[in-house]
Amino acid sequence: MEVKLLSHTPEPERVVATAARLCYASQAAEEVWAGFTPEKQQEFIGKLVNYGHYSPFEHVVFTFAVTGVSRSLSHQLVRHRIASYSQRSQRYINEAAFAVVMPPTVDADPAARAEFNRIIGQIQEGYNRLIALGIPKEDARYLLPNACQTQLMMTMNARSLLHFFSLRCCRRAQWEIRELAWKIRREAVKVAPLLFREAGPACLAQGKCAEGAMTCGRPYTREDVDTEDD
Amino acid sequence: MEVKLLSHTPEPERVVATAARLCYASQAAEEVWAGFTPEKQQEFIGKLVNYGHYSPFEHVVFTFAVTGVSRSLSHQLVRHRIASYSQRSQRYINEAAFAVVMPPTVDADPAARAEFNRIIGQIQEGYNRLIALGIPKEDARYLLPNACQTQLMMTMNARSLLHFFSLRCCRRAQWEIRELAWKIRREAVKVAPLLFREAGPACLAQGKCAEGAMTCGRPYTREDVDTEDD
Amino acid sequence: MEVKLLSHTPEPERVVATAARLCYASQAAEEVWAGFTPEKQQEFIGKLVNYGHYSPFEHVVFTFAVTGVSRSLSHQLVRHRIASYSQRSQRYINEAAFAVVMPPTVDADPAARAEFNRIIGQIQEGYNRLIALGIPKEDARYLLPNACQTQLMMTMNARSLLHFFSLRCCRRAQWEIRELAWKIRREAVKVAPLLFREAGPACLAQGKCAEGAMTCGRPYTREDVDTEDD
Amino acid sequence: MEVKLLSHTPEPERVVATAARLCYASQAAEEVWAGFTPEKQQEFIGKLVNYGHYSPFEHVVFTFAVTGVSRSLSHQLVRHRIASYSQRSQRYINEAAFAVVMPPTVDADPAARAEFNRIIGQIQEGYNRLIALGIPKEDARYLLPNACQTQLMMTMNARSLLHFFSLRCCRRAQWEIRELAWKIRREAVKVAPLLFREAGPACLAQGKCAEGAMTCGRPYTREDVDTEDD
Repeated sequence: MEVKLLSHTPEPERVVATAARLCYASQAAEEVWAGFTPEKQQEFIGKLVNYGHYSPFEHVVFTFAVTGVSRSLSHQLVRHRIASYSQRSQRYINEAAFAVVMPPTVDADPAARAEFNRIIGQIQEGYNRLIALGIPKEDARYLLPNACQTQLMMTMNARSLLHFFSLRCCRRAQWEIRELAWKIRREAVKVAPLLFREAGPACLAQGKCAEGAMTCGRPYTREDVDTEDD
Repeated sequence: MEVKLLSHTPEPERVVATAARLCYASQAAEEVWAGFTPEKQQEFIGKLVNYGHYSPFEHVVFTFAVTGVSRSLSHQLVRHRIASYSQRSQRYINEAAFAVVMPPTVDADPAARAEFNRIIGQIQEGYNRLIALGIPKEDARYLLPNACQTQLMMTMNARSLLHFFSLRCCRRAQWEIRELAWKIRREAVKVAPLLFREAGPACLAQGKCAEGAMTCGRPYTREDVDTEDD
Repeated sequence: MEVKLLSHTPEPERVVATAARLCYASQAAEEVWAGFTPEKQQEFIGKLVNYGHYSPFEHVVFTFAVTGVSRSLSHQLVRHRIASYSQRSQRYINEAAFAVVMPPTVDADPAARAEFNRIIGQIQEGYNRLIALGIPKEDARYLLPNACQTQLMMTMNARSLLHFFSLRCCRRAQWEIRELAWKIRREAVKVAPLLFREAGPACLAQGKCAEGAMTCGRPYTREDVDTEDD
Repeated sequence: MEVKLLSHTPEPERVVATAARLCYASQAAEEVWAGFTPEKQQEFIGKLVNYGHYSPFEHVVFTFAVTGVSRSLSHQLVRHRIASYSQRSQRYINEAAFAVVMPPTVDADPAARAEFNRIIGQIQEGYNRLIALGIPKEDARYLLPNACQTQLMMTMNARSLLHFFSLRCCRRAQWEIRELAWKIRREAVKVAPLLFREAGPACLAQGKCAEGAMTCGRPYTREDVDTEDD
């Protein structure tokens, strides 16, 4: 899995701070914008996080290129509706040489790994035979497994990202999307530390588990975050 | 594939007509509601369609149970973001006895059909072996094919349905989601003919193909609609 | 202010329970639907609330007719984007006899009330004079005050309603929209007690204030809810 | 009215072209990105517009500071839900010296203009008296007129902007929001000509009026666009 921040709103923290300040200020937006020193941005965004006022976070977006993830993951991911996606199409691309994502539990067990690889090999053969028989790509793909690697571009605004992190950085999230969430978080923190420093699973970001009776019982600490970021 | 209308806003045409009328009427909403005879509803909704004013269509929703569709289809379907979905989870359900969707092009070619079935059989075996080896269901499912049948509930408002039909009833849509779109349309027309009678692919509903240079060149006629509805 | 529940998804609790159950059940949706006794619905929805799994709540919607609210309120209200609105148009309706919402603080102070009424009278005169001079309604309305009463229909799904309540039932919300939120909640609880019994401001529903440093310091109790509902 | 493009996704055309290409290409996103010369971007985006494939347009956003518009306009504007807004708050800002938007029809008629100004003066007095009497700003504002100037920041993605233009650049749109739409379009075209050159009212962009029986009968020409842009 590889996550690359392809593009983002320039000066995202200044944009968020300006949007927030505008609501309570008598100056014009440009003046507010011009007057925001980094220190003032920090102070102001700290207040927003403290008050739980996240709507100004919507004004900045982050576009990620995500490669080497499974179709299981992408099916889950696109359920996050406040986001935009463009994904490699199995209807139009010949998947003769598709790569796969192997789950760690499978990888760790030699018998399971062998069986997994054997079946993947069978699927690859089957797909190619169907293509050779003249079956359209969009129909031959019905054989392709969830493990099949895909590639996509995702654009999310910072508020939607915070929500994504709160659900998907959680220890109870499925392992692949959890790995994705932490990788996305790492890229986001690099370019907008004020916006994302406090982001993460609900236990960390809101100080309260959101899983109710299903809680894992092991709330994240700051140190855990550093570990995930390694 | 089976589509069942599980629930919908009662008296959907009256709700839409009332919402629309409210914008221009000096009476209270309840009076508008009470005063709408079926004839007046028909006249009023006809005007909305004629003027292209579809926002009142948002007030009514339709909930469908969809079974026997592939995961290819569901991955495409959930890209329609102005809708709500609940879907059978491959993480939590044992798919030892999964059923599949076979594309018509595969079904029509004996060699392809045999190969397709052989591979599906291999996958089924592989999935079961991984489970037997103690691999969690959420990881064994990485072997499951796009063809794997799923089941879901989908709720869409009438405006979003019109958009869905305009894209997915189109001859250029992928065959499985196109079949779904026509089946959903048929159910919707039964309970809300005034809202959906004119619905369909862009060629039919807007009188203008939306595929530009990719047009199929065979615009739908009213008779074609009857055929799809058989 | 008057709030009337004009329409809603029939058997909303059964719809939500079915959607939730579908994700983990091997039966078909219709069987799940058929098998849900009221007791099982209660048990199942209790779990959803307990686990914080609210996506099945999206499948049911509630349509309210709201009258006698100000344009201040409606401007705030339509900021809730996961909802549908149809609103009385000041562009097309002659507002010669507009009614107003008087804030309680104004009403409680005789001098303020007199001044308020005097200005409203002036505005009414001015509006009518502009109309008499041939100014179009859509331009004469530029004189109309925020206090001007409007009427609207709003449709929200249950998940969006929970969010609306968590923000707008809060003691820190503006008084008029707070009154609206409690009235809407009361109507919703009547027809879907299992869905909305626990709904309310964050202090009540999530057991944790969402206003951070701006907290009012007086978390709602069950008794407070009964008072609001009087 | 003043519209300033405060921020936007850098290289918006390259982002859109990359997102679109990704769906059909076997290369990695970064390679696609790196390989896009301006000529290829132009060719590719031309195809998207030609085929009506606008989903890649969602990946780029534009943030505008809008000042000197009325609250009538902002109430209409925020009905566009696929967008983010931050707006000057009348709850928290003292509006003692509020400025107004005067409709052109009022401005053009000396008697109407005088009456308009007289009433605005009365409102200003009334507002200040309520404040002097200790009425909170959030309640005194109930007297403020629709004409009252506001300021806001709006972020929209390019697809949502195209929809906004198709509705609001139309001759049948209300004059103030129509002026805003053309001003926003002008700013957008400057930084992303490939994305917005063909944008505008439905008559221009889709070659087909969307107002049905309410059509103005005067479809826009390219020359009309130049005039609006003066």
